[in-house]
Amino acid sequence: MHLPLDLLMGRLPLILHVMEVVGVLAFAVSGVVDARKQRFDAVGTFVVAFATAFGGGTVRDVLLDRRPFYWVDHEGYVILIFVMSLGASFVLRVVSRVASERTMITADAIGLGLFSVTGTSLALVAQMTPTVAVMMGIISSVFGGVVRDVLCNEVPMILRDRSPYATCAFVGCCVYIGLTWLQAEQELALLAGAITITAARLLCVRFGWKLPS
Amino acid sequence: MHLPLDLLMGRLPLILHVMEVVGVLAFAVSGVVDARKQRFDAVGTFVVAFATAFGGGTVRDVLLDRRPFYWVDHEGYVILIFVMSLGASFVLRVVSRVASERTMITADAIGLGLFSVTGTSLALVAQMTPTVAVMMGIISSVFGGVVRDVLCNEVPMILRDRSPYATCAFVGCCVYIGLTWLQAEQELALLAGAITITAARLLCVRFGWKLPS
Amino acid sequence: MHLPLDLLMGRLPLILHVMEVVGVLAFAVSGVVDARKQRFDAVGTFVVAFATAFGGGTVRDVLLDRRPFYWVDHEGYVILIFVMSLGASFVLRVVSRVASERTMITADAIGLGLFSVTGTSLALVAQMTPTVAVMMGIISSVFGGVVRDVLCNEVPMILRDRSPYATCAFVGCCVYIGLTWLQAEQELALLAGAITITAARLLCVRFGWKLPS
Repeated sequence: MHLPLDLLMGRLPLILHVMEVVGVLAFAVSGVVDARKQRFDAVGTFVVAFATAFGGGTVRDVLLDRRPFYWVDHEGYVILIFVMSLGASFVLRVVSRVASERTMITADAIGLGLFSVTGTSLALVAQMTPTVAVMMGIISSVFGGVVRDVLCNEVPMILRDRSPYATCAFVGCCVYIGLTWLQAEQELALLAGAITITAARLLCVRFGWKLPS
Repeated sequence: MHLPLDLLMGRLPLILHVMEVVGVLAFAVSGVVDARKQRFDAVGTFVVAFATAFGGGTVRDVLLDRRPFYWVDHEGYVILIFVMSLGASFVLRVVSRVASERTMITADAIGLGLFSVTGTSLALVAQMTPTVAVMMGIISSVFGGVVRDVLCNEVPMILRDRSPYATCAFVGCCVYIGLTWLQAEQELALLAGAITITAARLLCVRFGWKLPS
Repeated sequence: MHLPLDLLMGRLPLILHVMEVVGVLAFAVSGVVDARKQRFDAVGTFVVAFATAFGGGTVRDVLLDRRPFYWVDHEGYVILIFVMSLGASFVLRVVSRVASERTMITADAIGLGLFSVTGTSLALVAQMTPTVAVMMGIISSVFGGVVRDVLCNEVPMILRDRSPYATCAFVGCCVYIGLTWLQAEQELALLAGAITITAARLLCVRFGWKLPS
């Protein structure tokens, strides 16, 4: 009864808000890049970018029974993504040839880190146990990318190679949970968890680390 | 506070009801045709037809937190679709060779138009902003077809070609929103929006109009 | 008003609980086997196993608006599946070469039977009509496997061949509904329905029975 209140009060909401904004845009970009590869038109690009950006968070909110959804309260981002999708047909036509894969993986890693810890944190606020909270975190961050890949009929990136992906989210969520357990500042715990995930993911890709299959 | 009441009263519910019936059947047919192509058995055909017909509306209701679902209140359609699926193995075996693609695109265009505006309208009734309402409309109409294509392991039709699809829904939803903004009769606005979408979609297919990729 | 109460009282909850445990594990195993085939790492294997085991039940609960989810209340199974996923990389490496397909089909048939009748039963408890309840049962049991196959980018097993799958679930759910209608003991009805489905499915596979396409 006490923990959730502390979480709701304080600066946590603001931090969560900022992190979700960055994560939304990061995932949206990865959706736009992927949609462009499929030569999808502007509105189609928007649909993929929208699903990628808000898919994970929306499923998390449905599972936690939270309303209204993030994108319902912040339609500014919906419009921003739409404009981005319109511009994308011009901007990314160049990018997609040069840095496509790298751009996607980086944007994806940022979203992965942010959504994992914010999802875990919101699950804790909703009185979920640590184990379930970690699940919720992984679901929040992985689901958007899976929807993006399924919509583009690609093998989901989380399955395409054995390079750790959900694994990074899992580790970072445990870091976050651990720090929370140690009564660490929420802001510190969230940032530490997110940075752990993003860094781990990027290092895994950079050095081609693979998990044993 | 006032708008939703006006919407709930009046003849809107009846119109919405009729439109959803037509849309449900149109999507169900497209599901049956697709399932037949996959030589799926009767119950399997039903599963695909059911998902195609009710998938979009169900997701919309989950997002808007509306209960009970349309198909829970109108199980007559569930049974009708089931009978259709049983008959389909005989009926469509012929059709699927002759008009399959054309049948699917037409049925799909009708469902697209109807579900887009009804979804948008129901979102407005649920106090959503115009932007979010348009999103809900597109989700309602596009999701059923996407589920159908994913279940049949095809590239979703909305991605298969650059022929405008979500784009048509988007335009029609804007027409509907615009007319609503102009205080037009709900019935008029809904019909105008739906007809715009269906006509636009059919014209795009007929004349092979493509959006720039 | 009376039927649901009777259902909630009595030993039904215990039976449902036991059946869901077995079903969860059966589906989890099929998820693990499938994930191993894709050479997915431990956490990835867990994600697939988790989605397979809890996907159907979670969607059912979302549709019936039941909270908390089964896996939220019984996180022991979440942990069990996780440990199973870690061990899987060693255990199934052998199994996957020998009995993979057989293992999957059997585990899948058990889950199919259990989730179908429990889903139908819970829908009846939620005041759904028999028709809708059967739908819910099929959705509960089929959805997990579909998610598993979609995640592994395979053609969903329910579509891969014309061997009856949803059909078996449909028949067994009707048996369960029929026995309930005949005022049979809930336990009896549930077990009869589940056994009907599992047996039917295994017989169909064993003797290669196909439905006419």
